[in-house]
Amino acid sequence: MDTVAKLSAYLETVDYEMRVVGIPKTIDNDLADTDHTPGFGSAAKYVAVTLSEIVRDCAVYRVPAVTVVEIMGRDAGWLTASAALPGAISGEGVDLIYLPERPFTFERFTEDLREAFKRHPNLVVAISEGIRSPEGRYIGEGAQSGAADAFGHKYLAGAGKVLEQFVKETFGCKVRSFELSLPQRCAAHLASETDLCEAALLGSSGVGAAVEGKSGMMAALERTSDHPYQCAVVLRPVGKIANAIRKVPDEYINVAGNGITPAGIAYLSPLIRGERAVEYKDGLPIHVII
Amino acid sequence: MDTVAKLSAYLETVDYEMRVVGIPKTIDNDLADTDHTPGFGSAAKYVAVTLSEIVRDCAVYRVPAVTVVEIMGRDAGWLTASAALPGAISGEGVDLIYLPERPFTFERFTEDLREAFKRHPNLVVAISEGIRSPEGRYIGEGAQSGAADAFGHKYLAGAGKVLEQFVKETFGCKVRSFELSLPQRCAAHLASETDLCEAALLGSSGVGAAVEGKSGMMAALERTSDHPYQCAVVLRPVGKIANAIRKVPDEYINVAGNGITPAGIAYLSPLIRGERAVEYKDGLPIHVII
Repeated sequence: MDTVAKLSAYLETVDYEMRVVGIPKTIDNDLADTDHTPGFGSAAKYVAVTLSEIVRDCAVYRVPAVTVVEIMGRDAGWLTASAALPGAISGEGVDLIYLPERPFTFERFTEDLREAFKRHPNLVVAISEGIRSPEGRYIGEGAQSGAADAFGHKYLAGAGKVLEQFVKETFGCKVRSFELSLPQRCAAHLASETDLCEAALLGSSGVGAAVEGKSGMMAALERTSDHPYQCAVVLRPVGKIANAIRKVPDEYINVAGNGITPAGIAYLSPLIRGERAVEYKDGLPIHVII
Repeated sequence: MDTVAKLSAYLETVDYEMRVVGIPKTIDNDLADTDHTPGFGSAAKYVAVTLSEIVRDCAVYRVPAVTVVEIMGRDAGWLTASAALPGAISGEGVDLIYLPERPFTFERFTEDLREAFKRHPNLVVAISEGIRSPEGRYIGEGAQSGAADAFGHKYLAGAGKVLEQFVKETFGCKVRSFELSLPQRCAAHLASETDLCEAALLGSSGVGAAVEGKSGMMAALERTSDHPYQCAVVLRPVGKIANAIRKVPDEYINVAGNGITPAGIAYLSPLIRGERAVEYKDGLPIHVII
């Protein structure tokens, strides 16, 4: 969107007829001035479906254990917030959710786990890769810095591995951690139909706006209703959108900072709805390669 | 199957009419005396679909990069071998595959990457968590030992992170690694229809055999044809099955030890075929909880 702003400003100063309209897309959902961004709904669906399966898997064991799942989102916790959807939709969900929007402390984490263990033995914790201390230091920072110790060993792990080690030392129970990593952004077989439709709509609306002579604008989504879910396409000037990061708002995060509020669920849940039939060949989805 | 053997042997010595028949299931596919095990086909499908999506994702970039994907399988590389399916089926696949069945050396790995970089800039490497050195030491062993250095830092990473660090130091290019981890065994939305049918068939056959008076047996699959794929259910004594680990045979691994042969593909490919329609509610698959 920064490029859209710069290009359209430049084009106003030269004698060249070209219009520039931005069409948003990012699975991070951190773009300002649009209800959400194409790509996010499908990535959120991947996160929600995968967490629902992990929670189901963990629920069959009786031994105390903690599973830490690290989700993309360095500065904004939108994808991690989607980990709240299985619990809200089916009643069986993750136990704790930590976003970069709230400072993370090991004291609070310890308390949260103690409380959660009172309810059931197998805990699933969803964290953003970007969770950080009250001082603003990434929890995975030491691990990710690549700094070598006296023996030349380097620390390769992220926030999840740091929490895994902490749980092992503090609770002595079974613990594992892993990152959802790349599949979050490329698991096309699990796309959200809502997302696919909106992506096409924003694309065609952006092209239509350019044809009509608009420039320096972004095709954005404006939500008009949660029940039933409705979004309208609107055109917004890209100037102020360009470099702002839209974080998960306070009212979507619970007071304890370890879960998502009903308002957050109301925002997120329509975006993962709907499935498009995938064509398979010999057991694998067919990818259209252009 | 060890329990089946012991229980049925014990029951022959006491006056108690009970029959014990084993019904196999393991996503690891490392059980002896059956063509494959229920669970494996679905896990293999998850691995193959996910790798096909990762390869597609990586293919759009032009900057040299290596993506290392660590797959379950400590002693047998069946699931990792399934990473060969996208290439065999669609022509777009992972570049290198390393199984625990062949010793792993960093010299060979370096050579393999150099060769692969001649073909395209974005490489995807699939490895078993259990790859090991010619001396039999796990590549991820130091990383997983939990041993602390002088500062109390512990090494948490697995084989993938070790290879990530090696590539970074040796090639200086962009590199990342991650584990497919838990979703391999619980991504029910991606189950193989072939696997689901065979699981039900083996279950009912095992019960049928017990009803007919059999004991100390396992319901197993015997492949009678690859084209068309056909498996028959047979009953096999569990005695010798109990503690054997069935590894990927030599003829399924290429001479270079970095890929899967056509014979391996012929074995694997029928097992991931077919999709069962999944019922969704509000964007999430419905899980039947009993």
